[in-house]
Formats: sequence, structure tokens, C-alpha cells
Amino acid sequence: MIRVGVVGATGYAGAELVRILAGHPDADLTVITSRQYAGKPFAEIYPAMTDIVDLTCEIFDSDSLCDRADLIFLALPHKLPMAFVPDLRKQGKKIIDLSADFRFSDPATYEAVYQPHTSKELLADSVYGLCEIFKEKIKDADLIGNPGCYPTSVILPLYPLIRKGLLDINTIIADSKSGVSGAGRSLSLVTHYCEATESFKAYKVAGHRHKPEIDEVLGHAAKAPVNITFVPHLLPMSRGMESTIYADLNKKINESDIYDCWADFYSECQFIRITDNGRPPDTLQVRGTNYCDMGFVLEKEKNRIILMSVIDNLVKGAAGQAVQNMNIMMGLDEAAGLKALPFPV
Amino acid sequence: MIRVGVVGATGYAGAELVRILAGHPDADLTVITSRQYAGKPFAEIYPAMTDIVDLTCEIFDSDSLCDRADLIFLALPHKLPMAFVPDLRKQGKKIIDLSADFRFSDPATYEAVYQPHTSKELLADSVYGLCEIFKEKIKDADLIGNPGCYPTSVILPLYPLIRKGLLDINTIIADSKSGVSGAGRSLSLVTHYCEATESFKAYKVAGHRHKPEIDEVLGHAAKAPVNITFVPHLLPMSRGMESTIYADLNKKINESDIYDCWADFYSECQFIRITDNGRPPDTLQVRGTNYCDMGFVLEKEKNRIILMSVIDNLVKGAAGQAVQNMNIMMGLDEAAGLKALPFPV
Amino acid sequence: MIRVGVVGATGYAGAELVRILAGHPDADLTVITSRQYAGKPFAEIYPAMTDIVDLTCEIFDSDSLCDRADLIFLALPHKLPMAFVPDLRKQGKKIIDLSADFRFSDPATYEAVYQPHTSKELLADSVYGLCEIFKEKIKDADLIGNPGCYPTSVILPLYPLIRKGLLDINTIIADSKSGVSGAGRSLSLVTHYCEATESFKAYKVAGHRHKPEIDEVLGHAAKAPVNITFVPHLLPMSRGMESTIYADLNKKINESDIYDCWADFYSECQFIRITDNGRPPDTLQVRGTNYCDMGFVLEKEKNRIILMSVIDNLVKGAAGQAVQNMNIMMGLDEAAGLKALPFPV
Amino acid sequence: MIRVGVVGATGYAGAELVRILAGHPDADLTVITSRQYAGKPFAEIYPAMTDIVDLTCEIFDSDSLCDRADLIFLALPHKLPMAFVPDLRKQGKKIIDLSADFRFSDPATYEAVYQPHTSKELLADSVYGLCEIFKEKIKDADLIGNPGCYPTSVILPLYPLIRKGLLDINTIIADSKSGVSGAGRSLSLVTHYCEATESFKAYKVAGHRHKPEIDEVLGHAAKAPVNITFVPHLLPMSRGMESTIYADLNKKINESDIYDCWADFYSECQFIRITDNGRPPDTLQVRGTNYCDMGFVLEKEKNRIILMSVIDNLVKGAAGQAVQNMNIMMGLDEAAGLKALPFPV
Repeated sequence: MIRVGVVGATGYAGAELVRILAGHPDADLTVITSRQYAGKPFAEIYPAMTDIVDLTCEIFDSDSLCDRADLIFLALPHKLPMAFVPDLRKQGKKIIDLSADFRFSDPATYEAVYQPHTSKELLADSVYGLCEIFKEKIKDADLIGNPGCYPTSVILPLYPLIRKGLLDINTIIADSKSGVSGAGRSLSLVTHYCEATESFKAYKVAGHRHKPEIDEVLGHAAKAPVNITFVPHLLPMSRGMESTIYADLNKKINESDIYDCWADFYSECQFIRITDNGRPPDTLQVRGTNYCDMGFVLEKEKNRIILMSVIDNLVKGAAGQAVQNMNIMMGLDEAAGLKALPFPV
Repeated sequence: MIRVGVVGATGYAGAELVRILAGHPDADLTVITSRQYAGKPFAEIYPAMTDIVDLTCEIFDSDSLCDRADLIFLALPHKLPMAFVPDLRKQGKKIIDLSADFRFSDPATYEAVYQPHTSKELLADSVYGLCEIFKEKIKDADLIGNPGCYPTSVILPLYPLIRKGLLDINTIIADSKSGVSGAGRSLSLVTHYCEATESFKAYKVAGHRHKPEIDEVLGHAAKAPVNITFVPHLLPMSRGMESTIYADLNKKINESDIYDCWADFYSECQFIRITDNGRPPDTLQVRGTNYCDMGFVLEKEKNRIILMSVIDNLVKGAAGQAVQNMNIMMGLDEAAGLKALPFPV
Repeated sequence: MIRVGVVGATGYAGAELVRILAGHPDADLTVITSRQYAGKPFAEIYPAMTDIVDLTCEIFDSDSLCDRADLIFLALPHKLPMAFVPDLRKQGKKIIDLSADFRFSDPATYEAVYQPHTSKELLADSVYGLCEIFKEKIKDADLIGNPGCYPTSVILPLYPLIRKGLLDINTIIADSKSGVSGAGRSLSLVTHYCEATESFKAYKVAGHRHKPEIDEVLGHAAKAPVNITFVPHLLPMSRGMESTIYADLNKKINESDIYDCWADFYSECQFIRITDNGRPPDTLQVRGTNYCDMGFVLEKEKNRIILMSVIDNLVKGAAGQAVQNMNIMMGLDEAAGLKALPFPV
Repeated sequence: MIRVGVVGATGYAGAELVRILAGHPDADLTVITSRQYAGKPFAEIYPAMTDIVDLTCEIFDSDSLCDRADLIFLALPHKLPMAFVPDLRKQGKKIIDLSADFRFSDPATYEAVYQPHTSKELLADSVYGLCEIFKEKIKDADLIGNPGCYPTSVILPLYPLIRKGLLDINTIIADSKSGVSGAGRSLSLVTHYCEATESFKAYKVAGHRHKPEIDEVLGHAAKAPVNITFVPHLLPMSRGMESTIYADLNKKINESDIYDCWADFYSECQFIRITDNGRPPDTLQVRGTNYCDMGFVLEKEKNRIILMSVIDNLVKGAAGQAVQNMNIMMGLDEAAGLKALPFPV
């Protein structure tokens, strides 16, 4: 059994980690921390977990944590992980950080949209944890920058096609939609029930901080700078994320070229499901699971492709992928703890 | 008082017409028909309207209808209006048809996506009832093809910009999202509560029948054939429609160029509201009203524009615009009966 | 035109007052105040009201307010109205207070569940503004304690039956359910979207502060102390309140006895709608309106009655009833400004 | 491995059985049938189950089914099971029927609310599968009448208290609320998205067919006829059921008497969770799980108790309990296949 700790266990991503780890056959969740709820049993904050999780939230203490955990998940707001990770790494712990602090290889990109980076020296060692694409690097990693939810849903369908040179990278547009849980548990008017229900709107149009993350990773595939147009929207539902992505094609191709490209690239990937015959994937079909379902339609007369992907933003878009990273790093079954069944309804 | 009839009064668009006309100061709703509910009081089908609407549904009978109504709304499935309208017109009645049957000037376009057109001779006289754009023609019209909901939300923000030559028409992409009421009252699995709630997905990708309608009208603005990419999606909410529209610009422009273009074109239009500073419009803010709110963001370095519009699909997207057409045709206050206030929550 | 002011205009009840007054034919909304948003245009806080409400929020100032308004609505948290009302009354203004501060005739009851009452001398003059029951007193009132939402939905169906001696008052149980907007605009976890959606639960079981208010008013009808069992629940929806109420009957009666009792008592009341044949009223049918729909079923073999009522908690349960009170006090059409049509869907 | 079949696999209860059995460690789902979808892969009807369930729906054929399954779940409309079970039993198969056909010990009760019973001879052998109460009988049963969802949520909190003589059985009132999935997958206006969302109402007031089922089982506890008042309501959400239950007490008691009574009775029951300090249970906390959470509040001055319980209507209220019955019948871990974790959000 691997002893694991979750720092920041009471936000939505942290609580989802606790939930998944509670059912993980090879991990023993030994420590959870929460500044806000220190001293309170987790099941008091999330009564759903009564009789399932017996842990009590603690104040973060690096030494105490390192005594009891071999691998540590950080589910904290940006900026805190940069401060905590150096010491945890010095104590030899493996780290999976769900914030943006260790997602970028170029600190300048990070600093342009977040703040000055205080642990730049660790960026060279950190690996971007998009499991289906960087699995080989993840196997040997000690520090993972776990991907953002939007980047996961946008990069997965695009990466193989760009890598193969099929798309005109100057024409990529991603129109993404997220359930409200993506905004976390912090209170705000935009996530207040009466202002979110029966409401749909874009936000942070062309200015969301996940865009540079997408651009950097797609740039690796293109071996050239990528600068997509990215517009996120807020959906009146709790969990689920859909991205509809548009791009012009570099040459005339058929449906089978796309299927083959995806099927080859993702042949070993059990969490990627490709829909048949252009059937649009539906967020409800991946709710509560680590799947990314994807499909596409070709507009041949315009030489344009429309890609669609769906994930559960808290699972494949956050905690599920984090556990998948742990599984890969520790040599476990990649799907261990991630076999929760979807709900047909 | 204008005597009006609603044919097909118990579908969602028809019921919304009844609702709006019940509060109209200058219209007297005298006849409602419904094949399915003939003989039943309207308030029995929609108990919300108890004490407000006293009419009983009748079987459609052309002569009886014409005896009692001067202007007739048709809220029927496609194909039926083509059969009914010739006789109603012969009896001198003004017609506002909410189906697609009289929306196209070119019958070939209609026939390509619907079915053979059996009243082609009337197409020359019919006017496309997008009020803010074709008001002058509507004033003199006897037969209106009331626009589809998606076309209303897509055409309104685009038309003035295309007309002014600002957009590269080969790059237009409309990513639209509709509430479930757009699918009407007919039962289907896709609108079954448990399959629609907590679900978001695209449908009829690049193949929706509203696309040729959009293309034809934008073609008038461009004075050239237009062939946009159009992807509709289904939202887990009842009323509301949002379109996020992407296009490359023909030249470098500033925000004020867009504001000025819209403000000039829509200067007399009380149902168009332009948001400030790129604030994305929200479906909740137009719920229950005839407004179309629109906003935009420029991606200057890419020379690309992102337009966003919202409407209530049953009001500005159907029954409200139909009443607006009536008001214009009959020389009434354009907003008569359409002053229902939005709900802040 | 009556000049009116709304103090506390940006909470949900206050904003609903602004919305209704914006469409009132005989009232001129001249002043709105908000501590939190002073200096901001109302339409910036509620963009839905753009082009409809041009007022800017002000800091509350008694003299300035009295200069410009003849009747003042207070939509503030409990305790503040007690402090503001004495001076406003001294300046001769009519007051409709939406808090609990002036709802009780006996200050001891108020103090048992709220706090010490600092304006007890005004309680003798204040009138409980449940319009259908206390209309005669309201006509002459200068100070109205506008009823709570739960009390409105529970008292309206019960009052006539208790007054007529039909119910065993020791057996009354009210199981009530409210939409989330009843909790107001203040942020809290219980009204956070992800914790309210797909969730249903009771709260403040047998301890809600609306219970003594219900007991006091029903006590008037019974001419004896009443002490009901009251359990409120939170619904995963925005607007709407339903109460299912159980009571044993004092004697064997028939359906017609109940219909007659209600019909007689509410014969002049246009906002009361009684459903036929035991059809349960539905919150959707009164959404956005000032109606209270009510129905019942008799369990004759048990000599028990089941009453059901629905209201929109922000309209008949708060702002709509407040405007109805104004209309009655000022001798206007009782329904002026309250003719917004329900939505069949 | 136990070979199991599901007859009627594409309704919501059937699909939920397929879902749960797909993850069951000791069961091998070998046959699924569906009249409507015969010949279609299950994953085509429920794309969520792609890569998880490979079975294709078959036409029901008794012999073919018995060849391949040792235990058979029937998830069919009432009346069909009566016709199918005799032959399946003759072939020695164990049966768990989710309809009402085998829930009643007295056929007269069944016939009063359903239809003539055509397999009365089997009723003496059938066991009512409310696992926490009838476990000993279930162990030896070959034919289970799986409880209704409402009866499960109402009986579980009441049974131990009635058995101990704490409640006045003439005063029991159950006010229950169900998510829409309880109405199944058959299309109807009441489950049409636009008529169910933002709507709350009672239905079948005092006349629901689950009431006699509740009365019969509570009668066993009381050793006297029970005739409760039961009012079901429809909630605007997919999964989840709450019952708030009222009863007068036979004597003065304290909170600890209730806790002790429940704790004793359910001491071995891992799916019963009792909330502390009167905290009302929340449907969200049991969503997707087989838990029944329950709590209560005493109104001591009135000598009345308020009980509250929540379940997932498709799991503990249908398919989950059916699998729990299988586990008990076959001597497996009672929770096998039922360890899906709840969602904190």
C-alpha cells in the first residue's frame, strides 16, 4: 500500500481526491489537511462520506505530513504549492500538484498570467501530467503538474491531429463549456444558485488562464508556436465539460484518416472512447468517470473539421487524472481506483 | 382592436403566442385551434393560464377562422402551413407563419432541406420577419415567414458587420446553444427530463436545417453566397439561447468600429441591447423578454472577432418576434404586448 | 403618480420590488438605496434591467428619502427597520416593511425568536399585510408588516377553514418546500450551486422563525392558541414554494363544504385560484405571478384533509404582496403592476 | 461466479441493474432482454456503458434464459412478471422481481390496486425484500418481491419505532418527494423536461399504489392494521427521494430512546446511516449509493416526532436493493457490488 496525503482536502478537487482514494485498492490515505476546517472530521464537512472516510482535517505541517505519506497531492490555490513543494521534494516525496504552478516548462509563460514563480529550479524536473500523451515521462517523474480541466478537454482531441500535421494551427478555435463545480467551493455570486441556474454565458472571453497552457502543449505537437482562440462558458449544471473545436484542414482527408489517427495514438488508452459516425459525445455519459469521450464531423466542402470532447471536470479534469498519474508513477494498474461506473441516467 | 387567431395553440410556440396576446393592449385573441386538444379549454392544458385565457381549442376550419380573425398566426409543424395559407390569403387575411414554409425566397433552398414546396407562388410575396433588419418590408407585408430561433440569434449580431464588409465571410463559425423548450412539446427521449438534465452535447452538427436559413439572409448582407459553419448544442435549461460566433476581420479595426456599426444599424431598435466592455451577455438576463443582448471581444493580434448574443428562444426566437411583426404590420407600437419585464433572478 | 422609494434595493426581494415597480402604472420609483452598491447604477448590478431601470443606488438618508417619496418599502434584514421606521413615520411617510419587525402584534413573540424590539410603540399601529385576509385594516394602515413567504403559503389555505371551525387545530402539520431564492442573495454554502442542485432536504425542522408568525395569525382565526408543526425544505430550483398541509377534521364534511368555504371567503380575491377535482397545484403555474393556487383532497375514512398551496416566494411571498399592499393602501386597482403573465413553460 | 440475467434491461431500473452488475465481483451478467431494443447492443442505447457492457439485448425466451442464468432479475411493468415467473421457478431459478406482483402476502390487497393476480399460489413463498428488516427470510428465499422506492424510504425509519410501540399508528403521515427518474423512461408530459424543471407539485394524493404496500408492512410491525396518510411529490431533479414523516408518540420519550431503538435494530446494517443532532439528511449525500440516511426531531411539547429519510430511488429504492437481496440469497458479502462512493458534490 502506498501511503498518500491530500493537502487542501476540502475544496471540490481535494474532496474528489479523498473520494477516489477512499476506494483505491493500493493506496492508503493517511493524512488530509485543510486550513479552514482543521480539527474537523472530513465526514462532518461532507456528510456523504460518513462511514467511508474517518480522517480528520489537519493543519498543513511539512514534517508531520512527510512522516506519514510517500506521495502527496496538493489541491491548493495557485501560489501556495510553489512555497510548499521544495521542502516536500527535499524530503524525497513524490508530488502531484493540481494547481498551475508546475504545469509550464517556461516560467515566463506562467509569470505572464499568474505571478512571479518562486521555485523555477523545479520546473525542469516537473512533468505535465496529461497521462495519455506524456505517459513515458510520467513513469519516471517525481513532480507532476496536473493539467487544467479545459486543457485536458481541448488538448486530447487535438494533439494527435496536430502532431500528424493535419490541421492549420492558425485556425484553431475552442468553444468550451464547464459545469459550475469547475469554479470550486469558494462562494461567489456567479456560483450562487439563483444566478447560475437557468443561465448560460461566456466568461473570460479570450483571456482565460488555461489558454497559454493549451498553447504551450499544442506547440509541442506542432513544433511551432500555437495561439488558439479559446472561449469558456458556464453551464447550469454541476459536473461536466464539453469542448467543440473548429479547425481548417491542411489537406483533403476522409473520416477514416481521423479515426485512424486517434485510434493509433490512443490504442493503449482505456480512458479514451471515440464515438461512432459523428455521434456527439454527451457530458452525462462520462459523469463521475475518468473517461474522455470524443467525436468529430468533417465539413468536406469547406475542408474544416469539428471536434467534440467531453469529460467530468472534477475527475478526468482534476482528481481522477491526478490519481491516474499516481498509478503510472507507482507502477500500478493505470485504472486502479478509477473504475467507478458512469450513470446511464 | 385587431381580431387575431392562433392555429396550433398548444405547442410551446403557440402557447407562448397565447400568453403574449392575452396581455396585448390592441389585439383581441378570438380563436385558438389545436388538433390534439380540440374541445378542451386552453386553461385545462396550461393551468397557469386559469382566469387569464378563457378560450377553448377548436378544430382548424378555414372559414370559421376567417370570420372571426383579421390576422392569423400559424404555429404548426412545417408542411401544414403551405397547405393552409393559400386559402387564408384568398380570404384576405394577414398571416404570420412560425414554420419554415415561408422563410426562404428561393424554393430550391427550402426543398433541399425540407420537402417539395406546394405554394411556391406565395414565396415572392412573403417577407422574412426579422424585424430589426427588414422592418420596412414588414410594414407592407401580408405574409410573414417568422425567423427560426437560431437564425435570429446568429443573424442579428452578424448582419450589420457583414453588410459593412468588416468580416471575412469564409471564416464564420457559429457555436449555438439552446434551452430544451426549443425542441417543443412533442415527447422524445432527448427531451425526457432524466436524459436532458445534467447533460450537454452538440446535435445535428453542421447539418441543422436552420443553417441554410442563416446562409440565405447573411448572403443578402454580403451580396455573395455565404456558407457558415453552424453547430447547435442542447442546454440543461428550459428557455434561453446563446450563440458565440467567430470570424476573421477583413481589416484592422478597433472596438469603437464595432460599437458604432451596431449602434448605427440598430439605433431605432428597442429590443437590441449592446453590452459594455465586452461583458458577455447572459441568457438569464433576457428570459421571458423580447430582447436580444449582444456583445463582442476583439482578438486584435489574430485579427479575429468573437460575437456573443442571447435571446429567449420562445420569445424573440418565436412568439415574441411574431407579435412584433404583427405590431409593425398593423402600425401599432412595435413593443405593444412585449413589455414583460425580465427577471433579475 | 405615487412617489415611492425602495430601501435595500439590491437583495432579491428588493430587486423584485424594483422590477415590479418599474412596470407599475401608478407608481413612480424615485429613490433606491443599497449600502453595498451605493453609487452604482441598478442596471450594472442586475444587467437584465438595462434600458428599464435608470436609477442609481444611494446610501440610505432619511431626510433625502422623505423629500422624494410618499411611500417607502423596506427590504432589509431584520433589526434595521425597527431603527429606521420611527423617523420615517414621524415625517408622515407610509411604510411597507418586508422584514419581520412589524409583523407581530405581541412583541414578546417577536422577541422570543428575533431580538429585543426597539420600537414596540409602533406595533399597535402596524397591520399584518396578508392582503386577502386583512384588506379592510390595510386600507387605513400607515405601517405594514409584510408577511413572510412560508406564512403566506400556509395561512391562506388554512385561515377560512379554521375560522369556520372545520379543523382540529391541534393536528395541523405544514410540510413546506421553498426554492433557493427564498434564502436571498447573501452567499452561503447551502445556496452554492453545486450544493443546492440535485439536492433536497429539510432544514430548521420545527424551529423556523416563520412558525410563530403562522401560529399568531392562525390563532386569530381560531380564537385560541395555535401551535402547528412546521417543517421547511429546500428545493433545487430558483423560485417557487409549495405547502402540503395536514389536519384532522372536526366533523364529517364533503368536498363541497371546503370549496364553498374557500369560495365564499375569497370571492373578491383575484389572486386566489382554487384547483378543480383535487388537482395538486404546481409551482410552475404561478412562477413570476402574484397568484396563490390552492387545492385539497379529503381522506374521508380518516376524517383528515390534505391542503396544498403554491406561490412564487419572491412575488406573492414578498415583493408582489408588498405592492398589493401599496395598491390597497393608496386606493388603487389592487392588481396594478401585478398583471405579469405566468409562463405555461 | 453466479450467472445472472436481467429481463427488461433498458428501463431505468433495468439499466441501473446492468450498471451495478457490471461492477459486481461475484456475478456474471450473461443475458439481458428488452422487447423494445431486441438485437441492439446495450451500449448503443446507453452510450455511457461503452467499453463496459458488451451485451446485446435479446427477446425474452424462458428456456434460453434459464440455460444461461441461475438467478434472474425482472425489471418489467406490473402484470408481466406474474405471467413469466411460474415457468422460471419450475426450472429452478431464483427470482428477484422489481415489480409489485410479488410484494403482497395478501392477494386481495394487490388486486384492490393493481389487477387480478394470476399466480396467487406463489405468493406464499415470495418474500418481501426489504433487506434490513427481512434478512433472515431472504436468506432462504427463492422468490423476492423487491420493495417499491417510496415504501423503502417510509418503512425503514418507521418500522423499529412502531415495533417497539412508540408511535400512535393512527397519526402517521408521510410526505414524500421523488426525483423524476422514479417515473421511469416511458415518455410523458409530466416527465418532459420543460414541464418538470422549476416545477414542484404533489401527485396521486392519498391514492398512490405504494400506500397499501407501506400499510401492509407496517401492519406486521404494529400487529394491527395500519392506514397511513401518504402524499408523494415530484422533485425537479433526476435521482433522489426524501420522506418527512410525522407521528404522535404513545408516551413521553427522549432523543436517546429513538437513537437506541434505531441503533439496536439496525446494528448489523451497513447501509443505514443515522444523522447526528437532528441534522436533516440530504438526497445529494446518498446519490448513486445504496445508503438510507435517516434523522429525526422531537417536538416534545406536542409529543410528536418528525422522521426524515433519504435514498437514491434507483439504487436503494430499486436496483441496489435488488442486488443486495441477491447477495443475501446467495451467501455473498451483502455489500458486494454496492460500494460505489457517494459524490460530495
